Amino acid sequence: MRTLTTVRSVTRWRRPLQREGATIALVPTMGALHEGHRALIRSARLSCDAVVVSLFVNPLQFGPREDLARYPRQRARDAALCRAEGVDILFAPSVAEMYPAGSATTVAVPVLARRWEGAHRPGHFEGVATVVTKLLAIVQPDVAMFGQKDFQQAALVRRLVDDLNLGVTIRVHPTVRERDGLALSSRNIFLTPAQRRSAPALYRALLAGRDAIREGARTRAAVERAMRTVITRLPLMRAEYLASCDPETLEPARRLAGRLVLLGAAQLGRVRLIDNLVVNGRR
Amino acid sequence: MRTLTTVRSVTRWRRPLQREGATIALVPTMGALHEGHRALIRSARLSCDAVVVSLFVNPLQFGPREDLARYPRQRARDAALCRAEGVDILFAPSVAEMYPAGSATTVAVPVLARRWEGAHRPGHFEGVATVVTKLLAIVQPDVAMFGQKDFQQAALVRRLVDDLNLGVTIRVHPTVRERDGLALSSRNIFLTPAQRRSAPALYRALLAGRDAIREGARTRAAVERAMRTVITRLPLMRAEYLASCDPETLEPARRLAGRLVLLGAAQLGRVRLIDNLVVNGRR
Repeated sequence: MRTLTTVRSVTRWRRPLQREGATIALVPTMGALHEGHRALIRSARLSCDAVVVSLFVNPLQFGPREDLARYPRQRARDAALCRAEGVDILFAPSVAEMYPAGSATTVAVPVLARRWEGAHRPGHFEGVATVVTKLLAIVQPDVAMFGQKDFQQAALVRRLVDDLNLGVTIRVHPTVRERDGLALSSRNIFLTPAQRRSAPALYRALLAGRDAIREGARTRAAVERAMRTVITRLPLMRAEYLASCDPETLEPARRLAGRLVLLGAAQLGRVRLIDNLVVNGRR
Repeated sequence: MRTLTTVRSVTRWRRPLQREGATIALVPTMGALHEGHRALIRSARLSCDAVVVSLFVNPLQFGPREDLARYPRQRARDAALCRAEGVDILFAPSVAEMYPAGSATTVAVPVLARRWEGAHRPGHFEGVATVVTKLLAIVQPDVAMFGQKDFQQAALVRRLVDDLNLGVTIRVHPTVRERDGLALSSRNIFLTPAQRRSAPALYRALLAGRDAIREGARTRAAVERAMRTVITRLPLMRAEYLASCDPETLEPARRLAGRLVLLGAAQLGRVRLIDNLVVNGRR
């Protein structure tokens, strides 16, 4: 495995490969890799000739009051995991390499960024859309892998790749969970033991929503009530949103029919958890 | 020459060429081709193995009260000019091909779109940035050619290509002019004979600004006064802006030193004219 830190070095690496017809998969990450990332890398490994993992804590997607400074960084461990998984290139650029002085271009998908994470994190998805567009232009992969845990992000990336004709196949890998259901996240290490015990309630809330739909709930409000009840029982946890949505547009589902996604976010001390569950509503 | 109308057909055409190491130049146009475009095509022809001319009247860059509907369209003449100049591919997609239902992604360079054309045409440069990003992704050229007449557009395209790591060389070709100095533009055909006689005044105003600088004008206001005087003499013409700017940032020049660009726009009946002149200020 080679670690590259400049755009130029990535271009130099990929050009001859692509001339030969080799395919490249990109796994974009912010580092602090866990088993969810490992699953993405393995899936990437299976689908292409070469695998690039990018490791970049993107300042553009953090709000001024968010956790950019304390976002977990563990470069040596990340490199070891990538090496063990047969990654070809670890692309770990500096902030100055990605956003040189004078950088001024932004990519946005306003219609998908308005609600849910976008509403709670103004500017977040513009930062995501911009850095993903750049990473795809730098690596020019055939396939890029994203985790389902960030459902809204994956929907937005799919949209922007289609809209900007980037010609990359976006694969979304199912969320990897702890045995008690908690979705893996680099931020989970910030949970205190008591918070960690409460954390799986977010997933349980989503399951309660699914059960409510299966048992014939007729309204969105009824489903959301079923989810919210699970969270409000817990003194440490505060629900931010719990919603049943159209999985393409992310608008609140008009009818509890067809394919739906339940989206949830909750605050647990200083940690925000997000999770989601795709469910089938009535036929 | 082949005329292609779908993204897929362009991809199919370019892939094998690029595998062989052939280079591609793109000349993005809105059609109604004139000698300015011909100069871009010839320059493209000299710099790459294959030349693509795109012909797309981009609705996203027209405001609701602008001339999208009456923008000149002369497809057969355009095709003949391209054929005569040895263009390989004329890419003429429909609006539905470029913006299928649900398209929602925009690219913006707010800092370069705020002033001058951007101030007079809200949303214009977001439309330009978005369509240029798409065309560059579709064609993946080595070089893309732009005319200096649209100076602000060229500055914005350079910025976005750098910022989004698109890896395309942007070449800007000097403005082609009529013998009386009027910059060629597809919209010139809308000028009445009387307006046409007044039209070169915009370029003369820029020359007057250059002369004022050469003759030692000390302030921006003095240069702008020299330019404005040329226009206000003409009853048919109304100046929109006449400014001396930094050619990179397009901010009003702080000192009349080094490389400057004089930017001008004027209304002549229903036609808007724009023009510019790069000049050297004091050492």
